[in-house]
Amino acid sequence: MSKQIVLTGITTTGIPHLGNYAGAIRPAIEASKQDGVQSYFFLADYHALIKCHEPERVRESTKAIAATWLACGLDPEKVTFYRQSDIPEILELNWLLTSVTAKGLMNRAHAYKAAVQENIEKGDADPDKGVTMGLFSYPVLMSADILMFNAHKVPVGKDQVQHLEMCRDIAARFNHIFGETFVLPEVVVSEESMVLPGLDGRKMSKSYNNTIPLFEPEKKFRKLINKIVTNSLEPGEPKETDGCSLFAIYSAFAKPEEVANMRKQYAEGIGWGETKKQLFEYLNEILADKRERYNELMQDPAYIEATLQQGAEKAREKAAVLLAKAKQAVGIGPIR
Amino acid sequence: MSKQIVLTGITTTGIPHLGNYAGAIRPAIEASKQDGVQSYFFLADYHALIKCHEPERVRESTKAIAATWLACGLDPEKVTFYRQSDIPEILELNWLLTSVTAKGLMNRAHAYKAAVQENIEKGDADPDKGVTMGLFSYPVLMSADILMFNAHKVPVGKDQVQHLEMCRDIAARFNHIFGETFVLPEVVVSEESMVLPGLDGRKMSKSYNNTIPLFEPEKKFRKLINKIVTNSLEPGEPKETDGCSLFAIYSAFAKPEEVANMRKQYAEGIGWGETKKQLFEYLNEILADKRERYNELMQDPAYIEATLQQGAEKAREKAAVLLAKAKQAVGIGPIR
Repeated sequence: MSKQIVLTGITTTGIPHLGNYAGAIRPAIEASKQDGVQSYFFLADYHALIKCHEPERVRESTKAIAATWLACGLDPEKVTFYRQSDIPEILELNWLLTSVTAKGLMNRAHAYKAAVQENIEKGDADPDKGVTMGLFSYPVLMSADILMFNAHKVPVGKDQVQHLEMCRDIAARFNHIFGETFVLPEVVVSEESMVLPGLDGRKMSKSYNNTIPLFEPEKKFRKLINKIVTNSLEPGEPKETDGCSLFAIYSAFAKPEEVANMRKQYAEGIGWGETKKQLFEYLNEILADKRERYNELMQDPAYIEATLQQGAEKAREKAAVLLAKAKQAVGIGPIR
Repeated sequence: MSKQIVLTGITTTGIPHLGNYAGAIRPAIEASKQDGVQSYFFLADYHALIKCHEPERVRESTKAIAATWLACGLDPEKVTFYRQSDIPEILELNWLLTSVTAKGLMNRAHAYKAAVQENIEKGDADPDKGVTMGLFSYPVLMSADILMFNAHKVPVGKDQVQHLEMCRDIAARFNHIFGETFVLPEVVVSEESMVLPGLDGRKMSKSYNNTIPLFEPEKKFRKLINKIVTNSLEPGEPKETDGCSLFAIYSAFAKPEEVANMRKQYAEGIGWGETKKQLFEYLNEILADKRERYNELMQDPAYIEATLQQGAEKAREKAAVLLAKAKQAVGIGPIR
């Protein structure tokens, strides 16, 4: 039986934080270790350009994200780990798909519609103000990413479900016009996508500026944990676990019996200082080795680059075969 | 002084006809022989996909067009003659440009607006009905074609002037955001783009089904010339040259003194049969050697393919340098 191909893209803007680790990195790496699965992980640097026109930020983020995933245990021998921009076949396929995609399909994409709605609400004369063709045609590129490797499964957050449906639409249309070429991918929605609270209690997110970067130096990391907002109950007073950021973060990492024990301590009136100390120690224990590996990798960019190049080689071998098939199907190729 | 780079794209749908030869192929090849000019000619097969979802037609057309240009004297040693789909760098650049192009710019493209207008007039509920992302984003790909080689001049018909302006817009925007990267191309509108009448007197065009294919066998070619519509004046009656298809076609090829002589014959009452005979002989004289070469080339696809591969090699050498610069500018590239 052939393996299930599972594909995961990682947009290269920003530096990974604790929320990314709990909600995306850790579960994806765990899943990649299963038997019967062939995982593709890629740094989606061409997608990053849609939102980010700051070259240095894209560069820094690409490096940090690659180092993070490797430090967290992604095994580049087992999975195919590559940078999107190293696979020109994806951009060629992107055009083949572009030429069969109905514009009407893109008109209905949530991200585009949200941008238009915002302009309308602001009273802008041009509803497309500030919308780039990158934002508008992004679901086509995403389809190329997926179809290029005939992925069977694409784990995504709820906000990406529509894009996966579009990818299936586009693939089906291509297959209908030019003959069976692409596998229709299945969407896998992360069951209960782990959402971690940030420093201020809202969802941990770069856009709220409330994140705890994953691999801050230990001292800084402790400081950040200490900054997490709590209520002002004194030590000795019983505390609610519901709605408590410290408890939520702890629960995202601890084993059930450890969580139960912490709940008991809350009821017994553990002080916030003590809770933070325990949380810091618990997380630091989990992260210390990975942090060290991360720092080593960040000092050794040539190693990261070589790893990505090996991944690109593996990926292009597959991509070249399918691209040739797709080009042949549409009538493009050597003169005979 | 460095040479002026002049770039010409040829969409690979259809088989070249006499009108294409007089209006496009002949003048472009002549222009490519000038000193101080470095010409790029490419088979725009990715553009063909926008309008044509018939693989066999794209294949046949690509072959016939490549053979036609070579038979008509395009010198692949002097010019760079390549197939768009052999240059993956163009598709990569296409995405870099896509991510900076305003959607609003594409909303204003004539070809797109015409399609929408047609839907509205037909009373279609969806103004975008039948519009593909290929049609909608085609000016971006055209920009990539041009900017990839830092073309200074792009000779086009009037209908393409707007696309050239869009190309300049996109290049200027990229340069503004990421630093000077692209040359802004100048549009060169064919001064009096030669329009030949077809068999029925309307403009010779594939869409009117009134064309005289350029390299029909001699017998068939004569037959087609004989089918050109005239009025029913008898031999001996003086004839108008204005509005006469035979005269228009003859004038497109003959020297001024020959045209003057034909005009005199019209005044003196030359018969249509005799006019057609003279026109056939005149054109056949011009085309016979080229037709023979065309037929040889059509029998030798490997030679055409090798020629295109050599062209692709030359083109990719240039393209790789500029793509690397553009990727570097946006923050995409090796980890350092």
